Amino acid sequence: MGLVMYERIGHEGRRPSPFSWRIRYALAHKGVEPEYRHVRFSDVETIRALSGQHFVPIVTDGDTVIHDSWNIACYLEGRFPDRPSLFGGAGGRGVTRFINHWADQTLGTAVRRLIAAQFILCLDAGDRAYYRSSREAAFGCTLEEYCADRPRWLAEFAIVTAPLERTLSEQPYLGGATPTYADYVVFSIFQYARLGCPDDFVAEGTALRGWRDGLIRMFDGLGDRYPGYPST
Amino acid sequence: MGLVMYERIGHEGRRPSPFSWRIRYALAHKGVEPEYRHVRFSDVETIRALSGQHFVPIVTDGDTVIHDSWNIACYLEGRFPDRPSLFGGAGGRGVTRFINHWADQTLGTAVRRLIAAQFILCLDAGDRAYYRSSREAAFGCTLEEYCADRPRWLAEFAIVTAPLERTLSEQPYLGGATPTYADYVVFSIFQYARLGCPDDFVAEGTALRGWRDGLIRMFDGLGDRYPGYPST
Repeated sequence: MGLVMYERIGHEGRRPSPFSWRIRYALAHKGVEPEYRHVRFSDVETIRALSGQHFVPIVTDGDTVIHDSWNIACYLEGRFPDRPSLFGGAGGRGVTRFINHWADQTLGTAVRRLIAAQFILCLDAGDRAYYRSSREAAFGCTLEEYCADRPRWLAEFAIVTAPLERTLSEQPYLGGATPTYADYVVFSIFQYARLGCPDDFVAEGTALRGWRDGLIRMFDGLGDRYPGYPST
Repeated sequence: MGLVMYERIGHEGRRPSPFSWRIRYALAHKGVEPEYRHVRFSDVETIRALSGQHFVPIVTDGDTVIHDSWNIACYLEGRFPDRPSLFGGAGGRGVTRFINHWADQTLGTAVRRLIAAQFILCLDAGDRAYYRSSREAAFGCTLEEYCADRPRWLAEFAIVTAPLERTLSEQPYLGGATPTYADYVVFSIFQYARLGCPDDFVAEGTALRGWRDGLIRMFDGLGDRYPGYPST
């Protein structure tokens, strides 16, 4: 019996979730093709019945149910030990955990300031009211106010990504000569950015842009397999 | 013929340089005891004659001269392959390079806002005018103005260190179960902070504080081998 991955999809097949993207790439890195099952943003009860919590992605492997993208990556590493490693050993796994938290807490927050207002159109029409009310409660302001000072947030994005730009100007991937899970985690935030808003704010000619575009093309163009930002 | 490490020392034996601390710990990790030679902050010509550039630390190994702390760490890893690894393999080295840049560019900048004005007393009296003029030219304001809004920079420090706190609440070291060079690089910025100003702004009871204090005690209390912030 094969693996099943549950993931949220949005408006007409959009898939902007960074947590799903990092696991899609981790599965491709391991050469594993799961069965994909789709849930809506508001299908909270379905997800809770399966895993006891309400976040996706979730991966099942027979009777084993794994949630939280980091746990899924570690599970895949142990489940397919003869396939290419996601971490390059215990030391690599340790530092990748830090990069995972940096990507979600620091990079993800900087990106959210640039896309949160426009992101809503990626969601199924029936999920947009929930998104707006839950996010506006968390932010303490409207989505539009949260993103209003765009020059400030573009400058913040440049500061936050400076260590990435520096590293990727010195080596092809965060993992070194070949990509590892650290690359997929950071890339997943850039997928969230490019699929979640109409503007590409990763400047052409940067090492970061070259790295990102190379990862889009990997695994037979996996990063472009689904539709981009809605045009209407 | 053994290794020689050239490092800067400050006022009455102070050693606040983060770049020296990360190499001291890397050497201890490898179980290598170099001969230490001291240079003053203003001994630019001595250093340039040795290495063709003016930054320390510099390590020499016979006729081989290595500068830049990252290059030194990579050199030590290759020179002592049978000793404990600093990176845990090629994948670990790749992601550690990112953490190195994050530590210097993001964490180091946040810390500098909290200590730059008080740091001057760690330097030899003869080096202070050079420090003040070069830094004030770089910052575009006086050292005191650079650090003036302390509540703002303490809040920024908390945001920047959030991914560290999260990671270290889940695992003992950035390297996982045991420390690697990633730990020493990040720790070196905390040494610069605690030796470079009189206030300890790493809160007690945090995972970060426990990790930092444990690293101070490692290698027979290496982190406390030299005097702390000057009392006068």
